[in-house]
Amino acid sequence: MALIDEFTTQYGLVKKMDAFGYLERLRKDPGQPRKQGRVILVTADTPLKASRGEGKTTTTIALIDALRARGVDAAAVLRQPSMGITAAGSKGGASGGGKASLTHPELVDWGLTGEMSAIEAAQNLLASFAEKAVDDGIIDTVLVPRVCEVPSRSARQIAVDRGKGDVPERMVLTPASEMMQIVVLSRSMDELGRRVAAMVAGTKDGKPVRFGEFIELWRITGILHDAVKPVLTETVNGSPVYVHGGPFANVSLGIPTLVSVDMACALHDVVVVEAGYGADAGAQKWLDIACREYGAQWPAAAVVVTRASTWRDDPELQWRYPFHVNRLESIGIPTFPLINLWEGEDGQVDSLRQTARSLGFRTPIVGNLFRDGGLALSGQLDDFVSVLGIGPTGEVQHAESSAPSAVATARMADKTSHRGVDVLDEARWLASSAYGVSENHVLLKPGFEESLEDARRLCLQAEVNIDDLAFLAVKSPATMTDDDRVAQGERTVTLKKVDPHFGAGLLHVSLTTSLTTPMPKIV
Amino acid sequence: MALIDEFTTQYGLVKKMDAFGYLERLRKDPGQPRKQGRVILVTADTPLKASRGEGKTTTTIALIDALRARGVDAAAVLRQPSMGITAAGSKGGASGGGKASLTHPELVDWGLTGEMSAIEAAQNLLASFAEKAVDDGIIDTVLVPRVCEVPSRSARQIAVDRGKGDVPERMVLTPASEMMQIVVLSRSMDELGRRVAAMVAGTKDGKPVRFGEFIELWRITGILHDAVKPVLTETVNGSPVYVHGGPFANVSLGIPTLVSVDMACALHDVVVVEAGYGADAGAQKWLDIACREYGAQWPAAAVVVTRASTWRDDPELQWRYPFHVNRLESIGIPTFPLINLWEGEDGQVDSLRQTARSLGFRTPIVGNLFRDGGLALSGQLDDFVSVLGIGPTGEVQHAESSAPSAVATARMADKTSHRGVDVLDEARWLASSAYGVSENHVLLKPGFEESLEDARRLCLQAEVNIDDLAFLAVKSPATMTDDDRVAQGERTVTLKKVDPHFGAGLLHVSLTTSLTTPMPKIV
Repeated sequence: MALIDEFTTQYGLVKKMDAFGYLERLRKDPGQPRKQGRVILVTADTPLKASRGEGKTTTTIALIDALRARGVDAAAVLRQPSMGITAAGSKGGASGGGKASLTHPELVDWGLTGEMSAIEAAQNLLASFAEKAVDDGIIDTVLVPRVCEVPSRSARQIAVDRGKGDVPERMVLTPASEMMQIVVLSRSMDELGRRVAAMVAGTKDGKPVRFGEFIELWRITGILHDAVKPVLTETVNGSPVYVHGGPFANVSLGIPTLVSVDMACALHDVVVVEAGYGADAGAQKWLDIACREYGAQWPAAAVVVTRASTWRDDPELQWRYPFHVNRLESIGIPTFPLINLWEGEDGQVDSLRQTARSLGFRTPIVGNLFRDGGLALSGQLDDFVSVLGIGPTGEVQHAESSAPSAVATARMADKTSHRGVDVLDEARWLASSAYGVSENHVLLKPGFEESLEDARRLCLQAEVNIDDLAFLAVKSPATMTDDDRVAQGERTVTLKKVDPHFGAGLLHVSLTTSLTTPMPKIV
Repeated sequence: MALIDEFTTQYGLVKKMDAFGYLERLRKDPGQPRKQGRVILVTADTPLKASRGEGKTTTTIALIDALRARGVDAAAVLRQPSMGITAAGSKGGASGGGKASLTHPELVDWGLTGEMSAIEAAQNLLASFAEKAVDDGIIDTVLVPRVCEVPSRSARQIAVDRGKGDVPERMVLTPASEMMQIVVLSRSMDELGRRVAAMVAGTKDGKPVRFGEFIELWRITGILHDAVKPVLTETVNGSPVYVHGGPFANVSLGIPTLVSVDMACALHDVVVVEAGYGADAGAQKWLDIACREYGAQWPAAAVVVTRASTWRDDPELQWRYPFHVNRLESIGIPTFPLINLWEGEDGQVDSLRQTARSLGFRTPIVGNLFRDGGLALSGQLDDFVSVLGIGPTGEVQHAESSAPSAVATARMADKTSHRGVDVLDEARWLASSAYGVSENHVLLKPGFEESLEDARRLCLQAEVNIDDLAFLAVKSPATMTDDDRVAQGERTVTLKKVDPHFGAGLLHVSLTTSLTTPMPKIV
């Protein structure tokens, strides 16, 4: 029996994996057989609108099916979609489609095994404890928002204790909650507990009060007991797919849990990780937050998905796709363009390849993944697998043989942490590196400096250096700058406000185009 | 392989049972082997306060362990406790204790397999659809409340769209929601869908609008796909326990789902069903709502649990326990007093038996169930099993041999439906039969008649006869009347307001002592 089987439980039509327990065992017993899987990052072009996906999940599924067909031990790690959004019809699910599907998409789209709702209950229980702390005189102002798994625009801003206190509060979607961020970032139940204890419940006379000062942590960790376990399901072709963590790369992390990726890397040679929305969102957060600040693995390669129509049909936005591809290459990540064809677009393949060549891309991978699944890709992955140092029979070569190019190595110098970098400097660096906006085009909206000052004061009183918090951009999923349609030299990014998440160790910085309390329209 | 195995799935440390599928199969194929289990109702004395249980779950668990030790094929059906309340520390869990425990109490107390949160998501999605219906001009007033699984007093009354619409709304605890009532009462997914469609979203120019008029039902039933499946777990002694349905017999139904009991009756000879709070709450609702109006099985016997201290230490409230025992006997249900001893009370056994005798009870069953579990009972169940017509080796005799006494039969005449009985007549009947209040002591609080008029108008417009809705008393769990401490002749019941639940087919009638939006204090 493999070690992982001790940590695996049947859970209806899927399996739950005790990733914390398994990784702990590997730490304690380094002699245990394990793999050293390489992370492939699947990201995408910036979508034309939030509800229109390019097909990242479909691509991820087709990609591992194609790799396994070539004998490569590949697995995927996906995030659990927000059931509320799917159920409400605001957005499709996130479980692939057509021949690139999961065996039980309905489970993934409809609440899986209760992970999201346990996280919702945990955060709402914190809100209730904060409220009690007000009654008990421990705090006078509640800072932790309530959460809800189904979207409701009118719940963005609520007043509780109507007719008496009329206390203003906020409600955010569960996947965007700090509790979800903590589940995504924590590598053990102890770390999770420490992070919950570090969350700020509210303030007393302006001073922050952390939950650890007045609640019993087991009440929260008890709720999350099963939610911290990744789900194992599979594609219709039997390829393993782990699902864990939350969506919303625009307003939160939008990446799978770090433990689900760590676990997958111990079990498979190639681990395809899907991050949310465009390369300016999920990929930026995987690289600059997960990798730089939280010890996640720097990708061995990236695939940037787009649709022919997204890429080319809007002349003013054509610049975004090449920008993403070149940006990732420029930091030493071998980056493969993937064009996900819709019905009736097969005729465009040649012109798409030509355009890709004219832009100096690597040979693009092109196919109708919904219609053809992995078969659409298998013939086009030679360059891809050679970059990964995978031999003809699918086995991974020794690291040496797949050493990155000298150029790449040089560029890969900047994988280091940005801890301690001034907030504004970090904002300028991010705008330039991820959005292509020159550093002197980062503007401050009236009120931003006050917001930053308040946050600095809060951090000071919490004995946290604000520059040590990881910079998390809160933005619209469909835009990279204040106006993506103006000429490159005129593009700006405006900073609106900041909001520290002490438990997750993140500094939320809202850009003008952001919707800080995500509650999508029900359509 | 037994038929039920086709409908059973491992779900972590418990099993999930597709009760709808199994019962449907039995209907279609009457030739299939099945049992005709008899329902034993476990209820209790009215507790001295809401957070203090008498030990119904502990008793239920000890009872089936004791019966199985005697060779009886007994199983228990429990309700899932409200995780929010347990996690918040407002109340203990509901999974027994000591030697009368479940193998995995933490699962039952902490969200089980997500049933409660799926119900929460379903009801909140309805609230969001109602809100959208306002935007779309389909309704102008939302009537369906939002729900939350964790208690928050200040959320009882909220205003959404703060600063703009400031629309008043309510938030109730998930287990008290109409969605939970629908899950408890529905015997098929079709029935569940019909009931959701019949729920009133709100009003347009005062006229009720049902969800069926504007939503896609599959979005709701999709969320509930797994939540409608009872959980199978077991006692530490290996006795089967089904867990399904919601608590809160004071403000809602507080009984297990009807399908979980139907299924258990097809699989076991004796099915011990636990209903919430005192006999004036859960037992009243099992008998007068589940049995009379929804085709549930009339109990073959009842066990009324109390603690020596509850029963005797408050002279003014001493009347309640005998009232419950005698009331159930008076309607033809063989009723066994059970006194659940706490540590240090063993010395009281003789005097307790004496008091029981002086009150004309059947021989009481007495024991420290936490300390001794089923062993405390096994020697005391001879009368009990003979009433059930169970032979010395545990096998059930033919119905004839366990025919109820002539007296009982006579009394059992009034198992009939009260459909069509006028609301006020029903209130008087209930006050007299379940609370011991003479019919002319049912008072109407100022405003009640207006509330009843509004409800009548709403029902008229919804083409529902208000007298056809099952009468559901909404009251405090710790009191039966406006003041249980005054002399019997002076006790009154005051009707405060009414609230029709069109989907569940219930008419909520609030009594003065009720808390209409249950959001317990966090302690």
